[in-house]
Amino acid sequence: MIVGHGDDRYSYGGLVRYDFSSNVPYRNHAGEIIDYLSGRLESLTHYPDPQAKELRELLAQHWRLDPDWLLVTNGSTEAFYLLAHLFAGGKTLITVPSFAEYEDACQLYRHHLTYIPTSDIANQSAPADLLWSALPNNPDGDITHRTGLLNYCSAHPDSYVIVDEAYAELCAEAVTLLDEVAHHPNLIIVRSLTKSFALPGIRLGYIIAHPSLLARLEPLRSPWSVNALALEAGAYICQHYDQLLPDATGLVREAQHLAHEVAQIAGVSLIPSSTPYFLACLDEGRGTAAQLKEYLVTQHGVLIRDAANFRSLSPRHFRLSVQSPEAGQALLRGLSSYL
Amino acid sequence: MIVGHGDDRYSYGGLVRYDFSSNVPYRNHAGEIIDYLSGRLESLTHYPDPQAKELRELLAQHWRLDPDWLLVTNGSTEAFYLLAHLFAGGKTLITVPSFAEYEDACQLYRHHLTYIPTSDIANQSAPADLLWSALPNNPDGDITHRTGLLNYCSAHPDSYVIVDEAYAELCAEAVTLLDEVAHHPNLIIVRSLTKSFALPGIRLGYIIAHPSLLARLEPLRSPWSVNALALEAGAYICQHYDQLLPDATGLVREAQHLAHEVAQIAGVSLIPSSTPYFLACLDEGRGTAAQLKEYLVTQHGVLIRDAANFRSLSPRHFRLSVQSPEAGQALLRGLSSYL
Repeated sequence: MIVGHGDDRYSYGGLVRYDFSSNVPYRNHAGEIIDYLSGRLESLTHYPDPQAKELRELLAQHWRLDPDWLLVTNGSTEAFYLLAHLFAGGKTLITVPSFAEYEDACQLYRHHLTYIPTSDIANQSAPADLLWSALPNNPDGDITHRTGLLNYCSAHPDSYVIVDEAYAELCAEAVTLLDEVAHHPNLIIVRSLTKSFALPGIRLGYIIAHPSLLARLEPLRSPWSVNALALEAGAYICQHYDQLLPDATGLVREAQHLAHEVAQIAGVSLIPSSTPYFLACLDEGRGTAAQLKEYLVTQHGVLIRDAANFRSLSPRHFRLSVQSPEAGQALLRGLSSYL
Repeated sequence: MIVGHGDDRYSYGGLVRYDFSSNVPYRNHAGEIIDYLSGRLESLTHYPDPQAKELRELLAQHWRLDPDWLLVTNGSTEAFYLLAHLFAGGKTLITVPSFAEYEDACQLYRHHLTYIPTSDIANQSAPADLLWSALPNNPDGDITHRTGLLNYCSAHPDSYVIVDEAYAELCAEAVTLLDEVAHHPNLIIVRSLTKSFALPGIRLGYIIAHPSLLARLEPLRSPWSVNALALEAGAYICQHYDQLLPDATGLVREAQHLAHEVAQIAGVSLIPSSTPYFLACLDEGRGTAAQLKEYLVTQHGVLIRDAANFRSLSPRHFRLSVQSPEAGQALLRGLSSYL
């Protein structure tokens, strides 16, 4: 895996007071789920159901699908590695910048990789075996390629399209392609239950795709990969789905406000985003994001995501995920004083 | 994975009152660990450290090793699949009967498999790439091949030997080969923290092997596979290791008592075991273990492990793991009435 993922506060001891590095929404309902889980710890004394039958059925009800359109995984990361394994050796397009695990998983299984900007999805005349993208995209919060992805699915029925929707519920507008899965047997959606619901430590995700594809993935899994308490959390989430979702509209509005204030500071530019996280870039001659990160964490207790290791970005890019107004003030003070 | 693993109580609704099917020790200290975890649920709101640095260091201290001799995994199952991946396509010996996941993992990665009884370990003149075994063995509690495994390590330094020690701490006598790892760079020990400590739902295991081997395994992992609460449990276990271990001597004594009573019933024979679980076999003409299992669960609320799907065993084999005296009486009543 890439070193330098967000939420790497474990590398900084007690220095971090304000964490802008992780895309997990800062206003969330994780506390309610944790309260519930505190009464369900006995589940750890038994093996988890390796098929996650109950959770699959609950998710299927929620999304109005048959359970055989769903596969529950140990976070979306296990889903990525399973999919990369299934298409081992394939000719694969990855849109960039994007989450490094797509590339890492594909490298492990010897894909022949080509990296394209999302704007080039529409221009692929010779289809690949696989196109890999995210909606909304991470790290930039881009959603403008939604139509391009759907058109690609239609134009290239023999090519599979993986869409990572980990952050779909953090957009103010509906971006998901879930409703399209029934119409496109080549469309594979990967979801994370632990981003929307702010429990990244619990490792719970799922794949929604045509049953014939999931039947080919199932034999590649190592069993019991999902912890029993994660299954409990998933079941509880499904039973209280809408009330546990974060206030995406509010978060995006706050993020846009923060972005506006960051943009007022000379020496840094912003990239428009539809999510509570967004990319920023130091101007030439203002040092690197790594230097800025080190300065902010040691001098201001503010952790940002150095985005230099996202393919196609520069050493000057960094990612911010909106936090409390107080944290925002600390960030703005730190940025102003650095620049 | 194989269908029909133990602890499949989720398949029987509320029928199961006494569960002899899982090898998790019935007298254990899981409650203390759960009490601790109830105060650590906040850990789920952050990504787990993908390197499990703290837990590796604690385990290393406990076993008096350097941390680079350790790799923390999502249960021992993830360890098996990683090892099978590393030796993909290899010529592999698996001792039988044994846990079906060794075989499943090797099949997935296209090993050329040969199955041998543990008594044949000493007779391998042409070494394989890999020899895979368990100490004590599951399902039969056999430990007599300990010396054979060590001799094989010495005789075939170019062959790797994987020893699954999930149940090593449930033997009344010391069987582990951990002390031998430093002397045999081809010896790979797989451990589970969730058998000894009775938390199979938490999914936590580790590999102890030469750092050069672990360095080759690390790139095959999908990151964050171990849940944050599992890491917390592991850290707590390391800090209170000996007091959280089960009373193996007592459990084995109780198991031998139960085995003795089962052996009094006409129509069933026993296989000697060094662990709290043991194999039994219906005599010819007494039906199958599947029939016995169905009878016991529906008529007596007693769940046993049909062992017919362990390679080299017959449809008449079943496994029992000692439970409370009350449960033992229910089992004996059920067996007597079936036979």
